Amino acid sequence: MNTTAGPATGGVLTRRRFFEGLAAVGGISLALSGMDALGFGMASATELPPTLTGDAKGTRILILGAGLAGMTAAYELSKAGYQVQILEARSFAGGRCQTSRKGFEHTDLLGNKQTCEFDDGLYINHGAWRIPYHHRSTLHYTKLFGVLLESFVNDNDAAYVFFEKGEGPLKGKPIRKGEIAADARGYAAELIAKAASKGELDAALTPADREKFVAYMINEGRLSPKDLAYTGTEGRGFSVHPGAGTSPGPGKELPPFAFKDVLDSGAWRVLSSVTGYEQQRTMLQPIGGMDQIAKGFEKQVGAMIRYSTVVEKIKQTDKGVKVAFKEASGKTGEIEADYCICTIPLSVLKQIDLDASAPFKAAMAGVSYAPVNKIGLQMKTRFWEDKHHIYGGHIYNDIPGIGTITLPSTGWQSQKGVLLGFYNFGGQAARISAMKPAERAAFAVAGGQKVFPEYAENFENAFSFCWHLAEFNLGGWAEWGEDGRRDAYPLLCEPDGRLYLAGEHLSYLGGWQAGAIESAWQQIAKIHARVQQV
Amino acid sequence: MNTTAGPATGGVLTRRRFFEGLAAVGGISLALSGMDALGFGMASATELPPTLTGDAKGTRILILGAGLAGMTAAYELSKAGYQVQILEARSFAGGRCQTSRKGFEHTDLLGNKQTCEFDDGLYINHGAWRIPYHHRSTLHYTKLFGVLLESFVNDNDAAYVFFEKGEGPLKGKPIRKGEIAADARGYAAELIAKAASKGELDAALTPADREKFVAYMINEGRLSPKDLAYTGTEGRGFSVHPGAGTSPGPGKELPPFAFKDVLDSGAWRVLSSVTGYEQQRTMLQPIGGMDQIAKGFEKQVGAMIRYSTVVEKIKQTDKGVKVAFKEASGKTGEIEADYCICTIPLSVLKQIDLDASAPFKAAMAGVSYAPVNKIGLQMKTRFWEDKHHIYGGHIYNDIPGIGTITLPSTGWQSQKGVLLGFYNFGGQAARISAMKPAERAAFAVAGGQKVFPEYAENFENAFSFCWHLAEFNLGGWAEWGEDGRRDAYPLLCEPDGRLYLAGEHLSYLGGWQAGAIESAWQQIAKIHARVQQV
Repeated sequence: MNTTAGPATGGVLTRRRFFEGLAAVGGISLALSGMDALGFGMASATELPPTLTGDAKGTRILILGAGLAGMTAAYELSKAGYQVQILEARSFAGGRCQTSRKGFEHTDLLGNKQTCEFDDGLYINHGAWRIPYHHRSTLHYTKLFGVLLESFVNDNDAAYVFFEKGEGPLKGKPIRKGEIAADARGYAAELIAKAASKGELDAALTPADREKFVAYMINEGRLSPKDLAYTGTEGRGFSVHPGAGTSPGPGKELPPFAFKDVLDSGAWRVLSSVTGYEQQRTMLQPIGGMDQIAKGFEKQVGAMIRYSTVVEKIKQTDKGVKVAFKEASGKTGEIEADYCICTIPLSVLKQIDLDASAPFKAAMAGVSYAPVNKIGLQMKTRFWEDKHHIYGGHIYNDIPGIGTITLPSTGWQSQKGVLLGFYNFGGQAARISAMKPAERAAFAVAGGQKVFPEYAENFENAFSFCWHLAEFNLGGWAEWGEDGRRDAYPLLCEPDGRLYLAGEHLSYLGGWQAGAIESAWQQIAKIHARVQQV
Repeated sequence: MNTTAGPATGGVLTRRRFFEGLAAVGGISLALSGMDALGFGMASATELPPTLTGDAKGTRILILGAGLAGMTAAYELSKAGYQVQILEARSFAGGRCQTSRKGFEHTDLLGNKQTCEFDDGLYINHGAWRIPYHHRSTLHYTKLFGVLLESFVNDNDAAYVFFEKGEGPLKGKPIRKGEIAADARGYAAELIAKAASKGELDAALTPADREKFVAYMINEGRLSPKDLAYTGTEGRGFSVHPGAGTSPGPGKELPPFAFKDVLDSGAWRVLSSVTGYEQQRTMLQPIGGMDQIAKGFEKQVGAMIRYSTVVEKIKQTDKGVKVAFKEASGKTGEIEADYCICTIPLSVLKQIDLDASAPFKAAMAGVSYAPVNKIGLQMKTRFWEDKHHIYGGHIYNDIPGIGTITLPSTGWQSQKGVLLGFYNFGGQAARISAMKPAERAAFAVAGGQKVFPEYAENFENAFSFCWHLAEFNLGGWAEWGEDGRRDAYPLLCEPDGRLYLAGEHLSYLGGWQAGAIESAWQQIAKIHARVQQV
């Protein structure tokens, strides 16, 4: 899931994985059994779209939804000779791949109408916002369509962590993540290195191993090799920066915090041995906004899309599908096709008159969708860069309802910037979305003000988006429970008659663009195989 | 120093700091005595250039060298009303802020002439190549001059580490850094969490502290809260990536390496609690090459520069300085001024007929300069991105003479790329620079081939630069020993008569552009104060 810090779970929200196959794996020998396990030529079924060789036989495909799943299917199927049409409820393509910039309009289900007032060139990706290096399917299309990418700073030791619910002297104070990392790991390394060198951990270590282990802990914790003490490290920062001449000359290192204070602060929650799978460095983003990906697809398949066309009914027979729709003008109509690929979120699809088997509909009914809010705050100066020397990254915090504050990874050193003022989920998201847009902005500004004294005085305007209040989404992404994954999910991955579902909800990459794309790849391969057999 | 991994010292070459003031600092109470210590409003003497109020009184300043120190001095002094001239030995400005791209020519002291043949748009920064977020002086000028910046990926868990001198099954195999990080930290966390929970580390921990400490280790090591075991983590990677549908569905996690194998490999050397001060995230680079900074300065002070003008003699009297020079045509001349700011590297200045006191000259004589080589390798595909899914970062390795291999942080997903094929220092650099350019390229390609099977077949052309063989540098940067810092350094930071030295060598930011800039700031402030007193 496309989430970052939650205070309860540490710096990275670990996606609970539903398979328990790890224990069955044979350990190191398997890992070393071939280059595959070391990352060479790692076979991924999902790196490239399926090859659709053979005749499309004039087959007509109706795709519901011009998000990334729908446009992926349209692009690949039309290349293979299929006759493709797409119905899109909105007046623009992209689905949850959206970017709000000057003039972007959104009216939510509570009737709140917002028109984005960011200055020209500024934007927030209020939907999908970053691409991990291993989302090869997404990167396949950015490369193919020439969507230019830049780095997304997803980890920054210079960024603050702020835990107001901790204890002790660090409570409620912005502290650079690198200081916490150095101290927590340094003190822990000291404890363990001393214990190991005294032979107190010997169960697991031979004397030779022990020596290497102590050397590792010295390196890891920047310990004094002499007495294995952690007394700080230049890497955590300086109160006076080193410079020229004799003053400041070497500068003055910041002394370490006390170990007890670090433990009491709770700020160690942001540390882990390695970032989560989805949060791995390097992350990327399209230059100019995530919707550049949508536009890349739209250039290819735009002519197949009927915009502002809302699906009202999906019928199917042995021979094909028939979809009734209503246009923005109120005019209704019907389209027939041989197969239908429906990428409408289940949250919305549940409410559409749908011709599908009872088990299929029951499976759909059980899936819930995540309430998710984001807000972009335009600031008249980039004080986080100018005053705090933080260039991108997340401000991990436990301020209720704020979730993550994220600083922009683009436009370094320019005058203004739009930062992500909150990114929240679940109950918090439901509570905050009940506010009027101006109240949401005030709430976000008050939260950020706790971390940055310059926040309120720099605030200019805001644009918020609540995915559960967006008419054609009704949620940020599908949330699968363990039961749902076991029972409902496999059913929904298979066609029901001539109806094929696709989207992030039919993947283990929930909430990510790659999930939508790879789901589409699977479904079109199935349709194509079926067409070949006819 | 602008260095990265050395196998002997871990992922980051720790700059040995020469002051031992840390012990004298009062610990946590001082750290918390004010917002200053937490990074708010941290007073740095070196964030902005000195304010030169008052009359320049028609004072003439002759600056030797149009590198960043010289151009900084020229820019600030001329703004304050001084009459400034710069002599530059090369036909272009920038000093060690250079970028090699198509057509760039360099002939080294051994007579090797190279003309860069990279494709249009490709380049390597063979001198300064990255800007840490806290080098505010450098960032002051990039902002002032509108030099556009992008991220430099300086840390990448997806990048390989390669230790061929290790032991055990991981020896000589490329392994993603994140796998080593997860395993080393995970197993260490398991050991210490178990010991702590059994009360074996109690000397330092109260029962309440112990509970928090174990919670921290569980989070850090991704341990099972039940039995405190480390059994891998999704964050380290997958052999089959999660995807759509039921296959690959959840995918398949890579199993952890055995702890013994990780220890034996030596690859844990790349891990530390926090990156070194100079290597902190976020690092930045100018879009289009580091020489964009030189060009930014040159736009301001270019009219003051006499290019291709080599200093032959520096004389001074009570009243002023007189510098004899030779132009490219062979024509000689002399310029007089009231003060001289000499930014010529000491390695070169030692060999110039210089009118300075005996102690000053003795101090100069004792400073040695680092042999440093870099090579850019043009590759016809970006196989590290396409095949290995590594977007930027360093390949830490212990291949003799290679030092760091660094993948480009720009041009993501474009067709070709120039990577840094080696970056080596000291004896290794001296050995490799003795090779012909074609041999250096072959050496670099053979080294990289050990890590990437696609290396040789993709290689197109190379451009190498050996700073100790560059006529007007004779080394990468000044290397100060402890004695030199104590005795020679303070002397050279002060003027000798009317001669002021400036450059990275007169800072504790050796080898960094910020050192050159901040040294210039200090010296012009001294000159200005002196002029005010006349």
